[in-house]
Amino acid sequence: MAVRWPRGVTSSGIACGIKPRGERDLGFLTSELPIAWAGTFTRNAAAAAPVTWSRARLRQSVRALVVNSGNANACTGPDGYSAVESTAAAAADVLGCNAEEVLVSSTGPIGVPLPADRIVSALPRAAAALSEDTAEFAASILTTDTRPKLARREVEGASITGVAKGAAMLAPNMATMLAFIATDAVVSQDHLQESLTSAVRTSFDRISVDACESTNDSVYLLSTALGAPIERARFDAALAEVCSSLAEQMVRDAEGSTKLVRIEVSGATDEDHGVALGRAVAASCLWRAAVNGGDPNWGRVISALGAADRSLDPSVLDLWIGAQQVFSAGVPFGGMDGMAKAAAEMASEEIRISCVVGRGPAHVEVLSADLSTAYVELNAGGTT
Amino acid sequence: MAVRWPRGVTSSGIACGIKPRGERDLGFLTSELPIAWAGTFTRNAAAAAPVTWSRARLRQSVRALVVNSGNANACTGPDGYSAVESTAAAAADVLGCNAEEVLVSSTGPIGVPLPADRIVSALPRAAAALSEDTAEFAASILTTDTRPKLARREVEGASITGVAKGAAMLAPNMATMLAFIATDAVVSQDHLQESLTSAVRTSFDRISVDACESTNDSVYLLSTALGAPIERARFDAALAEVCSSLAEQMVRDAEGSTKLVRIEVSGATDEDHGVALGRAVAASCLWRAAVNGGDPNWGRVISALGAADRSLDPSVLDLWIGAQQVFSAGVPFGGMDGMAKAAAEMASEEIRISCVVGRGPAHVEVLSADLSTAYVELNAGGTT
Repeated sequence: MAVRWPRGVTSSGIACGIKPRGERDLGFLTSELPIAWAGTFTRNAAAAAPVTWSRARLRQSVRALVVNSGNANACTGPDGYSAVESTAAAAADVLGCNAEEVLVSSTGPIGVPLPADRIVSALPRAAAALSEDTAEFAASILTTDTRPKLARREVEGASITGVAKGAAMLAPNMATMLAFIATDAVVSQDHLQESLTSAVRTSFDRISVDACESTNDSVYLLSTALGAPIERARFDAALAEVCSSLAEQMVRDAEGSTKLVRIEVSGATDEDHGVALGRAVAASCLWRAAVNGGDPNWGRVISALGAADRSLDPSVLDLWIGAQQVFSAGVPFGGMDGMAKAAAEMASEEIRISCVVGRGPAHVEVLSADLSTAYVELNAGGTT
Repeated sequence: MAVRWPRGVTSSGIACGIKPRGERDLGFLTSELPIAWAGTFTRNAAAAAPVTWSRARLRQSVRALVVNSGNANACTGPDGYSAVESTAAAAADVLGCNAEEVLVSSTGPIGVPLPADRIVSALPRAAAALSEDTAEFAASILTTDTRPKLARREVEGASITGVAKGAAMLAPNMATMLAFIATDAVVSQDHLQESLTSAVRTSFDRISVDACESTNDSVYLLSTALGAPIERARFDAALAEVCSSLAEQMVRDAEGSTKLVRIEVSGATDEDHGVALGRAVAASCLWRAAVNGGDPNWGRVISALGAADRSLDPSVLDLWIGAQQVFSAGVPFGGMDGMAKAAAEMASEEIRISCVVGRGPAHVEVLSADLSTAYVELNAGGTT
C-alpha cells in the first residue's frame, strides 16, 4: 500500500553508483516552496560531514534534502565536507535555489571517501523521478535493513509521514539511523523543534540494537504548512506515534535479530535514571545472547542493572519475564515452576521484561533486540 | 610444571557436587597461622553474598578462603548470606578457628540457591587434600574457562603466586573473575592494600571481554610474611606483573574468542580518560565482530571513541592498526594499499590498535577480545 508524503513534499530514490551492486542509493526529497524544518543529530564527537552541514542550517528554511546510502561520509575530513558542498550545490542547481537551502544526509560504511561526482551527475535524473509516493525514497536509504520503515498519521486535515532506516550501530543518543519526517500541519518553527526533540526522546532515544552510537544519526522533520492548523497536543501525540512506530520498526529489523525485547523500568528516580538502566540491560551481550537462546537468565538483567547504578538497593528489586515474576524484593521468585513459565515467555518473538528498581515515580520502556550468531557474521567482514 | 604457593599457604580443589557433571567445584586455601590480606571487589550494586561477607572482613587477619564454582550465590537474598555463614562456620570447624577468619568466594550462574550443605560436608575432605601445589585449586575455580590461569614471581627471597579464573561477564571495575594471590613477602597491612589496589587498577581493571560487569568479581591478596622483607617498589612491580599476567590470561581465554586485542590510547587527558576510551572501543560489538572477521573496520573504533567522549576533536585523532596508520589528523590515511596492510595486521592472533586521542599526557592499554558466533552460542542457553 502506497504511503504518501504530506501536501507539498515529493521524493524519489534512484541508483547513482555508490552501492557496489547497483541498488538504489540516492534519495531526493523536495518542496516547491521554502519550508521550515527541525532536526536532532548524533552527539558523537566524530559526527559525519553531512551532520555538520545540516546542523548548521537549523532554523533556516529549506527546499530539499539529499541522502545517500552506501557511504557514511564520516571520518573523511575536509574532502568529506567538500563532497557535501558539491552535493548541495548540485541539488540547488537542479531546483533553482541556494545551496544553503539543501540538507544532506548519508549512511553506510565510515571512513570511505564519498564519490560526490556520482551524486552530482545523478541528481537531474532524481529530480525527474520526483513523486508524492515514499516507496522509492524509502528503498534508497536502506543499508543492511531488510525492509523499508514507514509510518503515517492523519490528524484533522493534516498529516505526518515518516521514513527511516536503521538496523545496527543502533543505540540511543541517537540510535546508525536516519529518519525523514514531513508534515503539512501548520505549526510554528519553535513548536516544530520542541515537538521533535520531545518525540525523539521517547522513541529513537529509547532503542538499542548493539549499544553502538553512530556518527550519522539524524532525524529531520520538514513542515510545508500546506494543511490545517492542528492543536499542539494532538500534533505532538501524532508525531510521537510516527517516531515510535519508526523506532520499533528499526528494532524489529535489527541485524540478525529474532526477537524484540521491551525492557520496562519502573520505580526509577526520574526519566533519565530509568532510561540509563533500560539501556544498560539492552546493552548486555550476555543477556542478549540469552534472549537469542530463549533462556530466562534473569541474573544477567540484575547484574546489568547493578553495574549501571551502583546505588541500587537489590532488596527492593523486582523482576518479571512476561507475566512470570522471577525476582522479588532481592530474592529469586517462583522456583523451578516459575523458571519453566519464564522459559515459555522467552520462546515468544516479543518479550517483555519488567524491572522495578526502586520506589521512584519514573516509568520508561526501552526497545532492544537479541544478539545472534547472524549479527556477528554480518559484521565480521566487508570493509576490504 | 607445578606452580607452588608461597611459604605458609596450602590449597586443594575437589568436587563437592555443585557442578552437574562432577567436575572440581570446591577450592580451599589455608594458612596455619592467621595472616593479613587485602582485597578488591566488584562495585556492582547487586554484589553477591560472598562478596558482602569477605568485604566486611577487610583489615582482619584470616586463616582460610573457601571458593566454589558452578554457582555465584548472587541475587540469592538472605538464604544466600546464610549459605556463606554455613560455609565459613564449617571451614572454621575443620581448621579450629573462628568463622570470621574464613573468606568466601563464589562464581557461576546468578540467582540459583547455593546448596551449602554440599560444601559443608565436603570441607573435611578438602582439608585432607591440602598441599603446596596450586594445580587442583586452580582447576576447581574454573567455569567456562578452558584452562587454568597461574602466575608466579620470585623476588629477593620471597614470592608471589596468583591463581585466577574468568572468561566472560568480564569487564573492568572489576572484570566475572576471581583472583587469589598469596605472598610470603614481609609487607605491612596498609602497604598490602595499597599495592593491590594499584596493581588491580592497571591489570584487571583494564580488560574487557563483553563489557558485562559481574556481581562476584574479587581479587584477594594473602600475605603470610614468612619470607623476606622486600623493598616496596620491587614488591609492587612483582605484584603488578602477577596481576597483569593473570588478566592477560583471562582475555586470551575469553569465551569463544580467537584474538587478543591490545587497545592503546595515548594523548588522553589523564588515566581515567584513557581507560574510559579504551574500554569504549573494547565494548563495541561492531568492532569486536570486525576483529573476529579480520576486517580493519577502523571507522567503528573512531565511532566508539566519539560516542564515549563527545568533546573529542576528530581533527587531532590518529589511528594505527598494528604498524599501519589508517587515520591521521581526522582524515583517512594509507589508501587501498594501507587497508590491505591493515587487513594483514588483522589476520594476526594478537592485534594492536593505537589511538592518539589528543595532546594529553596519559597513555594506557586495555586488553580485549573479539566477538564470535561461539560466544553467542555459549551464552544462548543453559539456565533451565
